[in-house]
Amino acid sequence: MSDQASVGAPPVAEEVLLARAYLSRVAEPPAPALARLVAEIGPVEAAQRVHDGRVSEPVAGETGARRLVRRAAADLAAAAAAGARLLSPEHAEWPEWPFAAFAVSGQRELAPPLALWVRGPGLLAGLCEQAVAVVGARAATSYGGHMAGELSGGLADRGFCVVSGAAIGIDGAAHRGALAVEGPTVAVLACGVDRAYPAAHQALLERIAASGLVVSEYPPGCVPGRHRFLVRNRLIAGMAAGTLVVEAGLRSGAQRTAADAAALGRLVMAVPGPVTSGMSAGCHRLVRDGALLVTRTEEVLEAVGRLGLDLADPPVSGSERPTDGLGPVAALVHDALPARAHRETRWLAMESGVPIGAVRVALVDLERRGLVEHCDGRWRRPNGVGHD
Amino acid sequence: MSDQASVGAPPVAEEVLLARAYLSRVAEPPAPALARLVAEIGPVEAAQRVHDGRVSEPVAGETGARRLVRRAAADLAAAAAAGARLLSPEHAEWPEWPFAAFAVSGQRELAPPLALWVRGPGLLAGLCEQAVAVVGARAATSYGGHMAGELSGGLADRGFCVVSGAAIGIDGAAHRGALAVEGPTVAVLACGVDRAYPAAHQALLERIAASGLVVSEYPPGCVPGRHRFLVRNRLIAGMAAGTLVVEAGLRSGAQRTAADAAALGRLVMAVPGPVTSGMSAGCHRLVRDGALLVTRTEEVLEAVGRLGLDLADPPVSGSERPTDGLGPVAALVHDALPARAHRETRWLAMESGVPIGAVRVALVDLERRGLVEHCDGRWRRPNGVGHD
Repeated sequence: MSDQASVGAPPVAEEVLLARAYLSRVAEPPAPALARLVAEIGPVEAAQRVHDGRVSEPVAGETGARRLVRRAAADLAAAAAAGARLLSPEHAEWPEWPFAAFAVSGQRELAPPLALWVRGPGLLAGLCEQAVAVVGARAATSYGGHMAGELSGGLADRGFCVVSGAAIGIDGAAHRGALAVEGPTVAVLACGVDRAYPAAHQALLERIAASGLVVSEYPPGCVPGRHRFLVRNRLIAGMAAGTLVVEAGLRSGAQRTAADAAALGRLVMAVPGPVTSGMSAGCHRLVRDGALLVTRTEEVLEAVGRLGLDLADPPVSGSERPTDGLGPVAALVHDALPARAHRETRWLAMESGVPIGAVRVALVDLERRGLVEHCDGRWRRPNGVGHD
Repeated sequence: MSDQASVGAPPVAEEVLLARAYLSRVAEPPAPALARLVAEIGPVEAAQRVHDGRVSEPVAGETGARRLVRRAAADLAAAAAAGARLLSPEHAEWPEWPFAAFAVSGQRELAPPLALWVRGPGLLAGLCEQAVAVVGARAATSYGGHMAGELSGGLADRGFCVVSGAAIGIDGAAHRGALAVEGPTVAVLACGVDRAYPAAHQALLERIAASGLVVSEYPPGCVPGRHRFLVRNRLIAGMAAGTLVVEAGLRSGAQRTAADAAALGRLVMAVPGPVTSGMSAGCHRLVRDGALLVTRTEEVLEAVGRLGLDLADPPVSGSERPTDGLGPVAALVHDALPARAHRETRWLAMESGVPIGAVRVALVDLERRGLVEHCDGRWRRPNGVGHD
């Protein structure tokens, strides 16, 4: 564990880290049933039950094959040896708000990560606060590489973190564009953070790990795979306020990242190019399907800046109720909140009929909006705010 | 006059043609006040009053400078000598429906043409029924020229008329693309149809005049001017179901054509290109402002085909009133329509309080919808359709 990651926050208990490391090795992402179980009963209890096989069928399906693989301590040691650490939702550095969208998206493929292996001095929660995903084709043209570098450099220069996948082509140009202005950048891998994949980007990954952050759901030593690249893309989309596709064929991983971004309620942007270039065909398709066409850094900033602002301060006009912007789950939880006595999260789950994990996510949202107050882990409406 | 233009329709009286030719020479387009006067009292009476100076101040402002220029017969003769003819709203070949939008747009710059000088075998009303304007920069890149030719060829091949301005660059490539597949194309000039402007397009204009139509508001011999290019653009937009901008700088005539198309309720489309090309910057701006991004002929057809269908058959569902789709002016005229006795247009104008020119436009709309029937130039509701 890096001391830097937990400055001012209580340390995360060793048993929690071991449990998260165990689960990270046992379940192949995405593991929605396991994620729900962990949210309900906590990682230590969940890890024990998974290990013992005392779980529901969906969780067993996600964990049965590897439940006896007990490498948590070895994985944590391997991470430390590689200069990496395990980041778990219990850490202050965990990007709680960006990842909250996973739990409420309702899509199986968009299950939240159980933990993240990270390498580098960056603090993930802070990096995600102002972040844009810049992604695109491996077989990028020189035009695409140029645009990825220009736009990423411009974003990084304004303090925005450039999130990408470290692949050959657009991804690499995006990271290099951010590094060129000594700006923040995060590489999300489909293999262990101790591996250099693609090999041609070994030096680039070292540079990212030296100033930003290299991130993966997969434990040290894991190899990349076709399925993992696609599953990884949801994390790239989830860490950023918007996803910018610079070049992409009609069938490409970048299209998947864009689809994930849209499903998570994030902005999708695309850079146009010559119609005669197949590498721009995916971008044009995205624009025809509703993505924002962008040509300059300022246009990206205008869009994601506004989005970021909206997320921070949901606009509430005089004629609207403060609960108007709530999603259906948060609205259910809000309805269940008592006005006087504080109640536990579990009580709210019973009262609202919402799974306890989703209740936790909803409470984060409600707290940001000032619609809930808590005391010793129990909740009620803020003083003076009764039921409608 | 070409016989072909008036097959099966009564000939237009000589005095009407002379009056329209006179007005075409006297007023510099756009002349909205004069257009309204002509719609109200007819071209012969309007021409006489303009000549005598017995007109309102707005009309005098549009006609005072040249009202004593009496070259109608000479202009008609010059046109005939150049193989051209004067097309007036009294001709069956006049594209009444496409131009109806001018009168109701309410924008001064979008006054309808008083008459059109045309050269070629094409029949304008028929050509406008399935037409797309393909326009763009003079300083086109080879990419833009390629795209203009490809898309125009594809449209013409499907029977769509390609309307453009015969300028160097995108316009020329658009006309050539249509001619290459022996498809219909219309060139709208900012000078007399007897002139070859630009000179480099003399052969191209001859080819268009040989199979399609060369059109202008300006009488024979008129020279082009900066103002006339902009004013001319509204006719290009007005003749087509949609305007496709292939390449354009941020400040360009093509942007004006696109703005006119939008104001006339027509579809605006743009072809993307490299962000690094200033000639695509105007297209990208248009898409960001709501224009449809298109990359292939099929995408254009899908959009304008649907629009054309909508124009031809306004959808009326069972739960709607047949008058639901009417604009405010047409609704006023509809309210004024008697159910039994037929009434004159002038009576409807009095009854509805709508200027007689706008009443005429509204009646065209109402007739298309089956909401009016006429007899000897007088109007009433169709049998059995009473007031609401």
